[in-house]
Amino acid sequence: MPDESRGHRGDRVLSAAGLDIGGANLKGARDDGLVVTKPFALWHDPAGLARALSELLEALAPFDRLAATMTGELCDCYGGKEEGVLHILAAVEEAAEAPPQVWLLDDGLATLERARSEPLRAAAANWQALAAWAAGLEGNEDSLLIDIGSTTTDIIRLETGAPGPGGLTDSERLQSGELVYTGVRRTPICALLEEADLGGQACPLAAEHFSTTLDAWLLLEEIPETPACVDTADGRPATRPMAHDRLARMLCLDPGELENEAALSLARQVARAQEHKICRAIGRLIEPGKPAGAFISGEGEFLALRALRSLGLEDERTTSMSRLYDPAVSGAACAFALARLASES
Amino acid sequence: MPDESRGHRGDRVLSAAGLDIGGANLKGARDDGLVVTKPFALWHDPAGLARALSELLEALAPFDRLAATMTGELCDCYGGKEEGVLHILAAVEEAAEAPPQVWLLDDGLATLERARSEPLRAAAANWQALAAWAAGLEGNEDSLLIDIGSTTTDIIRLETGAPGPGGLTDSERLQSGELVYTGVRRTPICALLEEADLGGQACPLAAEHFSTTLDAWLLLEEIPETPACVDTADGRPATRPMAHDRLARMLCLDPGELENEAALSLARQVARAQEHKICRAIGRLIEPGKPAGAFISGEGEFLALRALRSLGLEDERTTSMSRLYDPAVSGAACAFALARLASES
Repeated sequence: MPDESRGHRGDRVLSAAGLDIGGANLKGARDDGLVVTKPFALWHDPAGLARALSELLEALAPFDRLAATMTGELCDCYGGKEEGVLHILAAVEEAAEAPPQVWLLDDGLATLERARSEPLRAAAANWQALAAWAAGLEGNEDSLLIDIGSTTTDIIRLETGAPGPGGLTDSERLQSGELVYTGVRRTPICALLEEADLGGQACPLAAEHFSTTLDAWLLLEEIPETPACVDTADGRPATRPMAHDRLARMLCLDPGELENEAALSLARQVARAQEHKICRAIGRLIEPGKPAGAFISGEGEFLALRALRSLGLEDERTTSMSRLYDPAVSGAACAFALARLASES
Repeated sequence: MPDESRGHRGDRVLSAAGLDIGGANLKGARDDGLVVTKPFALWHDPAGLARALSELLEALAPFDRLAATMTGELCDCYGGKEEGVLHILAAVEEAAEAPPQVWLLDDGLATLERARSEPLRAAAANWQALAAWAAGLEGNEDSLLIDIGSTTTDIIRLETGAPGPGGLTDSERLQSGELVYTGVRRTPICALLEEADLGGQACPLAAEHFSTTLDAWLLLEEIPETPACVDTADGRPATRPMAHDRLARMLCLDPGELENEAALSLARQVARAQEHKICRAIGRLIEPGKPAGAFISGEGEFLALRALRSLGLEDERTTSMSRLYDPAVSGAACAFALARLASES
């Protein structure tokens, strides 16, 4: 793991932890690379958030400082973003031993009181913590950050050591192409493909939440099987046979009615649709001029690589956060970046 | 209500009830037009089906005969269609006082034992009961049946008093265009639109189950508000203000950030996308020659009318099941058709 400067208290190094509170996943990372994650369906159980965060923080201990960022305020258990941010901040405060710092858009790490007084600046701010940290890494002076998670993708230009100008809120960033609402686990297949071509026959898909991108990437062996994980479209395990069943249902077929080769073909079509979506967004962002390098992170690094390759942009200046640290750190990139920033602050 | 022949037992008219067991809704109708429906999330609670059916049958009593059809076997609580059909048949048997008849594809009303021995012929067969009954109505000798429900749309050619040749299973019918996986309540917006045009700006939508077609049709006042109904994307009421909030979330906006005019524009774009999908399917089915008339049914009759109008096919030979009977009967068209067929058998 690369050695970087960290805060000191007298002789002792000050350690820090970062929390990234999403709508479907809680992620925690310590600046030394310890990562703890937990699937948590916030929209189902907002009252259980503080308790879930307590467990996460216990597993992350010990650390001297804590910083938090979030995207979970968009969950439909909240009437609006402000309500969501304030509830999430209250849960973090309840779970933490000391008041955490909070990342505010365009302001960086701030006190909990500041965040409470400007809740909308704490909303959907996690990408900026990652971009601010990544922009400070050697080699990222003129780069493109691509972080592909379970649900969404962030694509940010890094220029002269800072995130380049662009959208700030989710809706601005959707419009600018810096936020692409597609990810390698949770994206419903029906949001990517209206129909599949199977053996030359156009096969419309069910407009149902029967299967997600996880199933395509499981079959394509880009995401490893995890029999214990049931955070899937039907609550059955994240294995290849189950992924096959879920994809079959998208065609209104019984599992046995879908040949393995056809299931793989469907998975490849899902993969291409997703890759195409990300390529289009990258294309828009590099239209003013190609960056010198790329920095890729998130559970979907493999998809970022596919997109860069198909755009002819992958080369020795492409840095993978998985290789630089490890896949767990890359999968919790925002939380880890926040921990590093808090430790350095 | 039109008077049609019904079965007799001695001097007494034999009454019949039909059950249409879907994945999200249970519908029951008696041949005299009494309709009882109940939202029931079968995939969440398969064990509760028999009990829910008991309540429905109690509300439908008295009747002499009972016939059942289904689409719920596709739910992902079942490992496959056969398992689903057998479970649903067992639940109907448990709930009913006497063994019901079951509609089998290409065979019509059959005994429960026959259905058990050929479960796949009972799968997704409800459209055929409706088509068989509708084809026997005066004026439907050369017609196009369009039944638009909460989740899917059936489009069937009726020729010389019988459903025309076409697909039989769901996947065959998806391919032929006779089954269009789109409906006026449950279809996720993200399955219809990738982005919206708001004031000339392309606004990508969240690939999330934040909002469904119900919200668009509520805002467009084609579906009336039902404050007591919480069978919506976020479990909040089916009212126009809540529909506005759900649509705003598709743009990652707070409710207050989306102007009413922009919300209406988004709703109109959803409506057009759905209408276009149905028009394309109708276009394929009438390509060999235009039918003389059309018979429209289901909760989405208004959408069928929009599609027929935009294709220049709506005229005095378009028959609305709502007008012929009433909207409740039209909304439970398959169950009602089955009751009529059972009464006449």
